[in-house]
Amino acid sequence: MAIHTTVATERVYNFSPGPAVLPLPVLQQAQRELLALPGVGASVLEISHRGKAFLDILARAKSDLAQLLNLPQGYHLLFLQGGARLQFSMVPMNLLRGADVPAAYVVTGSWGKSALAEARREGPVHVAWDGKATNYDRLPSDDELALDGDFAYVHVTSNETIQGVQFAEMPACGPAPLVCDASSDFLSRPIDVGRFGLIYACAQKNAGPAGVTIVIVRDDLLARSQDSLPGYLNYREHAEQDSLYNTPATFGIYLVGLVARWLLDDVGGLENMHRRNRHKARLLYDVIDQSEGFYRGHAAASSRSLMNVTFRLPNPELEAAFLTEAESRGLHSLKGHRSVGGIRASIYNAMPLAGVEALAEMMREFAASRA
Amino acid sequence: MAIHTTVATERVYNFSPGPAVLPLPVLQQAQRELLALPGVGASVLEISHRGKAFLDILARAKSDLAQLLNLPQGYHLLFLQGGARLQFSMVPMNLLRGADVPAAYVVTGSWGKSALAEARREGPVHVAWDGKATNYDRLPSDDELALDGDFAYVHVTSNETIQGVQFAEMPACGPAPLVCDASSDFLSRPIDVGRFGLIYACAQKNAGPAGVTIVIVRDDLLARSQDSLPGYLNYREHAEQDSLYNTPATFGIYLVGLVARWLLDDVGGLENMHRRNRHKARLLYDVIDQSEGFYRGHAAASSRSLMNVTFRLPNPELEAAFLTEAESRGLHSLKGHRSVGGIRASIYNAMPLAGVEALAEMMREFAASRA
Repeated sequence: MAIHTTVATERVYNFSPGPAVLPLPVLQQAQRELLALPGVGASVLEISHRGKAFLDILARAKSDLAQLLNLPQGYHLLFLQGGARLQFSMVPMNLLRGADVPAAYVVTGSWGKSALAEARREGPVHVAWDGKATNYDRLPSDDELALDGDFAYVHVTSNETIQGVQFAEMPACGPAPLVCDASSDFLSRPIDVGRFGLIYACAQKNAGPAGVTIVIVRDDLLARSQDSLPGYLNYREHAEQDSLYNTPATFGIYLVGLVARWLLDDVGGLENMHRRNRHKARLLYDVIDQSEGFYRGHAAASSRSLMNVTFRLPNPELEAAFLTEAESRGLHSLKGHRSVGGIRASIYNAMPLAGVEALAEMMREFAASRA
Repeated sequence: MAIHTTVATERVYNFSPGPAVLPLPVLQQAQRELLALPGVGASVLEISHRGKAFLDILARAKSDLAQLLNLPQGYHLLFLQGGARLQFSMVPMNLLRGADVPAAYVVTGSWGKSALAEARREGPVHVAWDGKATNYDRLPSDDELALDGDFAYVHVTSNETIQGVQFAEMPACGPAPLVCDASSDFLSRPIDVGRFGLIYACAQKNAGPAGVTIVIVRDDLLARSQDSLPGYLNYREHAEQDSLYNTPATFGIYLVGLVARWLLDDVGGLENMHRRNRHKARLLYDVIDQSEGFYRGHAAASSRSLMNVTFRLPNPELEAAFLTEAESRGLHSLKGHRSVGGIRASIYNAMPLAGVEALAEMMREFAASRA
């Protein structure tokens, strides 16, 4: 059957914190192929995860991610389901059960707090730092981390989406395996994977759609996964079966693969992506810093996130007016999280520079007209 | 930005056991909307799960499924991740922990066997019947079920995709809550939900794409979920938060919603769908029964599945030739599972009658030319 389709589409600038904007060329390719992959005659949504067409997609997504990340030998890259939330439990179920020392958690925002709460259900936990006293507006210095002793692992959150704080460099966490929730900055900049025992990231910020979670785990840690674990929750099972322990989120993996290709071919790698992201973030932070206090950033300057720019206006009425004005200019989903309030501009990889420029311009004009 | 796209597509008849063929109108709508939902200006892949656009999609999917299933009061319908495999563990983690009686399992094929294996990790289990002796080619009669005693629940698999056996009616399982893995026949026929304590189904057979799992649970059973459970694995958490405990598989839920709409509007409900499915299956079983032994069905006649038609040819060489001939006619993914061998035609809801007719015709011609 030959089927012909024509589509016309109007798109806004979407500053959603996640699920978030995807690269337009990725969406366009997915749209072209949605009824049938070239040469396959069926949609990627419809084909067996054990057939050649999907196995090729899986292998390509893995090797493109490995190339982007400069992945060293000795790591497995897995595609799982259940989001970062399920990783909050799987990490301690796999790495803490059977250990005779606690896990250490560095709590820099809402997500770290949730990760800690799940770990407490699984075993003994030590809090190495918690930024609650200042509503998670800054990150700890290395000196502030209470990391004397032996730990099963040390858990950090590289970027906190709600507060808008991000480690520019990973903190010095000692000899225990470093476990990182990189959900909201994975693929936004180069990382030295060799420094980590395990990295996990839900895809729906920079890497793809909701419903697929990427886990990179150092091979020696797989030995900690006990046979008594539920099958789906055992990293070793997934590693041994190359993410085909059961039917994975096939469409999500396909999209992550397209995003990886876009990063390699269109962007030119993670150094370039990082440069673009720094530039986009600076445009907004400059407006904040030059607004003579009209805009007040939530994060301390040294802890600012390149992914989520969080700020307040002088009062809630002005914040409401700001959101209305933004919407009227096609700048959507800028409302801050209720625990921080104000405005949050999430400017992940796929947010075009033009979208950030339009927001920066509006911020300047809004401040000038209301200050 | 206005974007114009034109696509031409060639599709085959796809008999994949899952992920499986989806209704063409569903794929076409998803394709039209892939760059932006009407009136939203962003793709369903890109929008917040807590924003109005997605909340409307979620509510509509739930109410359409409730209408299709004639869902009684007193049940929650959840959208989870992790496939049926994760349910194999979540069911006993939620319903067996803390119970003082075992769970009973009726094992009618490969999936029931896997469900049993995971339940054994969580608590005491009683095997009420196991069809292993005859390689799972038939279902038990009610008299054969060893169900004297008290059980936390009784677990059955309504359709076994690998062996191609399906309960035409649910067996009489006594007073314990009946838990059903309906992964491969959910939405293929009407069911009396009120007979069940819990029904679960991965979507990728009849209901949608891989990566979303539907769970229907009777409210009184939610009280069994212990607070000590990992958050993501607690049915009560998901029920209380209306499947928004964390970011769900948003695109998968959107597609399940489109499939539900297709079943309501295009098919006219599950009675009609069941009639179509019976007709399609009969076309193939008639060819088998009239082939004078050239085709030998795996399942006993009374246990035959309407979803997965499994059969052998006189020898492996003929089976290989059959698959080659089928492929040349655009009839794809007909190879049987290695544990049963031969041919498996998966003819879920979205397999068009024309595809089944083309296969039946080829089966007759192939038998005539080779017998």
